[in-house]
Amino acid sequence: MKDKGLLIVISGPSGAGKGTVVSRVISANEKFKFSVSVTTRAPREGEVDGVNYYFKSMSEFEHMIHNKELLEYMDVYGNFYGTNKFFVEDMLNNGYDVVLEIDTKGAFAVKKIMPEAVMIFITPESFDVLSERLVGRATDSPEQLKRRLGESVSELKLAAKYDYIVVNDVLDTCVNQVSNIICSEHHRSKRCLDIIDNFSK
Amino acid sequence: MKDKGLLIVISGPSGAGKGTVVSRVISANEKFKFSVSVTTRAPREGEVDGVNYYFKSMSEFEHMIHNKELLEYMDVYGNFYGTNKFFVEDMLNNGYDVVLEIDTKGAFAVKKIMPEAVMIFITPESFDVLSERLVGRATDSPEQLKRRLGESVSELKLAAKYDYIVVNDVLDTCVNQVSNIICSEHHRSKRCLDIIDNFSK
Repeated sequence: MKDKGLLIVISGPSGAGKGTVVSRVISANEKFKFSVSVTTRAPREGEVDGVNYYFKSMSEFEHMIHNKELLEYMDVYGNFYGTNKFFVEDMLNNGYDVVLEIDTKGAFAVKKIMPEAVMIFITPESFDVLSERLVGRATDSPEQLKRRLGESVSELKLAAKYDYIVVNDVLDTCVNQVSNIICSEHHRSKRCLDIIDNFSK
Repeated sequence: MKDKGLLIVISGPSGAGKGTVVSRVISANEKFKFSVSVTTRAPREGEVDGVNYYFKSMSEFEHMIHNKELLEYMDVYGNFYGTNKFFVEDMLNNGYDVVLEIDTKGAFAVKKIMPEAVMIFITPESFDVLSERLVGRATDSPEQLKRRLGESVSELKLAAKYDYIVVNDVLDTCVNQVSNIICSEHHRSKRCLDIIDNFSK
């Protein structure tokens, strides 16, 4: 496992089901690793520290910022979210493909720092499906729902800035497509020049 | 099958085994179609007209050039090779991904006319394997062998100009990788903007 891994950035609006897609993609290939984000927001029901997020206090989070332990971080309505830089770099150097599930703002911040990142946008197949999925979530108040729907439409407008767009219509198909994209990106010629150089020796 | 298909250009040096890879890729997916080239060279043993090539006389070939029936054509040591434009366009418009197995010169000629073509370069894993495979061919004289080896090394130097490089070490793996690349390319965001546009309506 000498080759450096790829950084895969996955975004998509709330209601795209990207969380499920990402966890299925990760478990499909032992070379894929999920980058667990750091957050100051409270855990939702069923969320586990170190699995879904690393849950930190505000002062712990500030400490990480101060020590430059975060690749990027964002304030989202008073809650902070960040990417653990050391984890990402360590995994990439060990040949793992690191998958980051992150919103569009965070995604573009990462792309700026690591331009070789592969950007994948997951979308539901239509506005109606998106609305249905968001309404189906019992956790949101009507105000939150309205805000989320607005945010989703805003995020969708940024999809063209990603390298790939994958529709999450049938889950298995979507998971395969994302896995294929990651595997295919290893064959981009810019990442394979050492193979060709060997012929000149 | 409304979406337009992709034009896939596959090159690689003699001895890369690209012919076998291409035929296996084509048979793996009914959406892939092989573009049978037109040539004035004599059929080799086992080659079938309309399957491996369309074998044409020089005057028939000139007639096709005159009628603009060829996407590109090349004179390779006195033998002419060309790509049937109408076949390619018809298949693409019907949603098929058309696979063109063609040398580097032809490949760059096609890319110039159809810049959206996806370029894949197939290579053996090392110079030693390349030499062995070429020596193993009983059809070549020592002079032809030497020329072919020189051409192969020249072609390998152009691999970096392709979008993807795939090593044909284990055939099954190589076939899967090429198939995955073709499928993944359908998800490039520039080809999926209609999905996102639907959310604005």
